[in-house]
Amino acid sequence: MALKLYIGNKNYSSWSMRPWVLLKQAGIPFEEAMVRFDSFEPGSAFKKSLQGVSPIGKVPVLVDDGFAVWDTLAIAEYLAEKFPEKTLWPANAQARARARSVCAELHSGFGALRSHCPMNIEASLVDTGRLLWRDRPALRADMARLCGLWGELLATQPQKMPDGSGPMLFGTFTIADAFFAPVCMRLKTYQLPLPADLAAYVDRVAALPGVQAWIQDALAEQDFLDFEEPYRLGR
Amino acid sequence: MALKLYIGNKNYSSWSMRPWVLLKQAGIPFEEAMVRFDSFEPGSAFKKSLQGVSPIGKVPVLVDDGFAVWDTLAIAEYLAEKFPEKTLWPANAQARARARSVCAELHSGFGALRSHCPMNIEASLVDTGRLLWRDRPALRADMARLCGLWGELLATQPQKMPDGSGPMLFGTFTIADAFFAPVCMRLKTYQLPLPADLAAYVDRVAALPGVQAWIQDALAEQDFLDFEEPYRLGR
Repeated sequence: MALKLYIGNKNYSSWSMRPWVLLKQAGIPFEEAMVRFDSFEPGSAFKKSLQGVSPIGKVPVLVDDGFAVWDTLAIAEYLAEKFPEKTLWPANAQARARARSVCAELHSGFGALRSHCPMNIEASLVDTGRLLWRDRPALRADMARLCGLWGELLATQPQKMPDGSGPMLFGTFTIADAFFAPVCMRLKTYQLPLPADLAAYVDRVAALPGVQAWIQDALAEQDFLDFEEPYRLGR
Repeated sequence: MALKLYIGNKNYSSWSMRPWVLLKQAGIPFEEAMVRFDSFEPGSAFKKSLQGVSPIGKVPVLVDDGFAVWDTLAIAEYLAEKFPEKTLWPANAQARARARSVCAELHSGFGALRSHCPMNIEASLVDTGRLLWRDRPALRADMARLCGLWGELLATQPQKMPDGSGPMLFGTFTIADAFFAPVCMRLKTYQLPLPADLAAYVDRVAALPGVQAWIQDALAEQDFLDFEEPYRLGR
């Protein structure tokens, strides 16, 4: 197997979820290696597992016949180049540019959503979500931008795709949907308020076979890590 | 003119510097629009200037005949696609993947270097740099990673390029050097310790005509913004 993807805990690792879902949903065969999250201290088991694999000692890392590609955006670009027949980015140049803009925006932004609502697929934190929504203006601002971004993209797509399903952000599934998949997981866990058409997009993403496969693995994990759990004392 | 780049203050805006230097150094004609930094509050002059230009109201934004591309990474990819003859990314697929990895790593990482050593091209903050170096382990860790990253890349390049100059990170100038150009500016302002071969790389970046042009404009700006100046009371 040429491609090997190193990932973290599936219940928690939002960064790992992106390339895994991308590969799975696109039907690209790959091997996976789960490196359990721990303290991330220099001598930790996590860091040791990644020694010799990646110079930055973080997940995800894609290794292609010994060559390491790290960072989700670089992994996505690498896969898009290696498998052009999969059209992982939109085929249209302007749509592709827009998809890259929103992925890069997500890559460095949405800090309040990221910090206040860590991904935790198995958890249902509805009351926590309501309190955060009430008390965190920065979270509401992130959500307003997210709704603007998704709304604008979906407004340019047909209501139904040729197969009868609703559209992804750029019509058919692309890297952009893989990038927003962990965001969809957060929205479900914390039940943050969304317009109906965007809630329907979240449901469509959650129903993608590649996303469902990740969710099932996350639910089976049953690993509770204190430092990823600001809102729970146990499972 | 088809391409218009919206940027912030040249003395301070590290994100703006990247695509500007990339365009300039690659010899791609463009128009620029400087949007002076201010409070960034919803009703501010800054936000008003970007209304109708970019949906996220941040710089840099590249506008190509009315089509907005935002975020430095997406702008870089857009330019690389639009001007393939400029080979803005390395031509070799693995080198290109590595260049994307380090740019994406920079895009979301190096938080201590970013927060403790904000770009301030006209300033010389040598004592501040020494104090930060003494007191901020996270800054020293960022610098260790930076030296590892640069060192590993430069070790694979020839000592001299065909024109007699020293190498850029991937031999000739690429997007990666444009991305690290603001980092080079920080290293100069705060005089953070570097091995001689890496200090020589910083000097080579600073001497690039595209970087020199930005520096000259930054020095001519003479605009002092309190919120960008944690270490100075005035010019």
